[in-house]
Amino acid sequence: MLSKSQIGFIKSLHQKKYRKAHGLFIVEGLKTLMEFFSSKYQIQSIYYLPQYQSLLPKLASNIKLFEVNNAELEKISTLQAPQGILALIAIPENHVIAPEALSAGFSLVLDGIQDPGNMGTIIRTADWFGFKHIICSTNTVEVFNPKTVQATMGSLARVDICYTSLPTYLQHLKIPVYAAMLDGENLYQVEWQQEGLVVLGNEGQGISDEVANLISSKITIPRIGAAESLNVSISAAIICAEISRNLYK
Amino acid sequence: MLSKSQIGFIKSLHQKKYRKAHGLFIVEGLKTLMEFFSSKYQIQSIYYLPQYQSLLPKLASNIKLFEVNNAELEKISTLQAPQGILALIAIPENHVIAPEALSAGFSLVLDGIQDPGNMGTIIRTADWFGFKHIICSTNTVEVFNPKTVQATMGSLARVDICYTSLPTYLQHLKIPVYAAMLDGENLYQVEWQQEGLVVLGNEGQGISDEVANLISSKITIPRIGAAESLNVSISAAIICAEISRNLYK
Repeated sequence: MLSKSQIGFIKSLHQKKYRKAHGLFIVEGLKTLMEFFSSKYQIQSIYYLPQYQSLLPKLASNIKLFEVNNAELEKISTLQAPQGILALIAIPENHVIAPEALSAGFSLVLDGIQDPGNMGTIIRTADWFGFKHIICSTNTVEVFNPKTVQATMGSLARVDICYTSLPTYLQHLKIPVYAAMLDGENLYQVEWQQEGLVVLGNEGQGISDEVANLISSKITIPRIGAAESLNVSISAAIICAEISRNLYK
Repeated sequence: MLSKSQIGFIKSLHQKKYRKAHGLFIVEGLKTLMEFFSSKYQIQSIYYLPQYQSLLPKLASNIKLFEVNNAELEKISTLQAPQGILALIAIPENHVIAPEALSAGFSLVLDGIQDPGNMGTIIRTADWFGFKHIICSTNTVEVFNPKTVQATMGSLARVDICYTSLPTYLQHLKIPVYAAMLDGENLYQVEWQQEGLVVLGNEGQGISDEVANLISSKITIPRIGAAESLNVSISAAIICAEISRNLYK
């Protein structure tokens, strides 16, 4: 049985300002939550329907457990169809990923992505292709938004993500900076290096001018049909796939 | 000035059962709407803020025009941030795409896609790569769902989409049926024919057994990292891109 104030507290975490104030975010669903158990993330508490108790792994003693009923879960869930289990996890401190960490392989740079679903899908795709780092501009959507967390399907637990001023970050890097733009070189004619960054811009505005100045190579996915553009998570995926095909062929 | 009953009527079209009953769907935003002007779709009426009047092209006289104010637009819009213009467009009759139409190039087959955003993104991506036809199982999400329509960014006006029983449709076709599955041949080792179908399955359940029996070739996007799966619109895009790279190289 949860108290009114517990319910109110968890519901407040649906909003960014309270996530920031309390340093906690929400993860729902057993499958997604399992990915966080053996990660760098610290699970603070778990709220579960009775039938989930036996499914929980042996837990560290500092994780608080609360059995809840359907009505309570519906109140605290961010989902239209709650998935039986919900956890509060500590938001790790934002750390700027060291440039040296980027020198093996490829990483993504997100310049003002706004849609939480796109953000989550990009993280999931990066994880599939083994891209371990994502550097985000400070105006990119918050990664702990519940829609983003759900769209990552647990990949958030594995991909290292930081927020920083991109112009400052990029200007001293020594690896190539590729960017998905509509007027670049044909994706299939790029001579990829063994490492690099791929910049993806805002859904409506594309890449900001300050960042565009720091790009070494613009790339374009060849268009055969008539659509004016591609969704940014789609562009990201096609480029990740092509880089991966080149690195591992 | 809209009457209460006009507002109620348009709001009813936010729901599938009323779209079906009245044979109308909603398109919002000038850019998306423009794509429908020179298409097979019939625009029935347009509701616009005063500043949009001068932006409208010369219209056929049978399109009804209604100037509205912000408060009215907010009531009838399906969006959190209405885009100044909203149109009602007739839902065309469902026609089964003739098998002969599929013999030039590639088409997509959607077997139970449920998420409206995924559906819309797949249509937009298909349009980018020049895939002109999409055949959907009868349990695939309705293409006139407002979220689907918005996610297509106007590509809905160009891509031909039908709903039909897939087992019946597929069993007499003579072109190869490829399918995105987790246990197939490496995408980059497939010997593509000059034409074919690509089947994409439901987000959680994958491809149904009846359809799986009719597949000529299973294909898998090679995984380098740790994510368990890819979002279905991402898989679709990576496969469309690879087919396109092979056809047009």
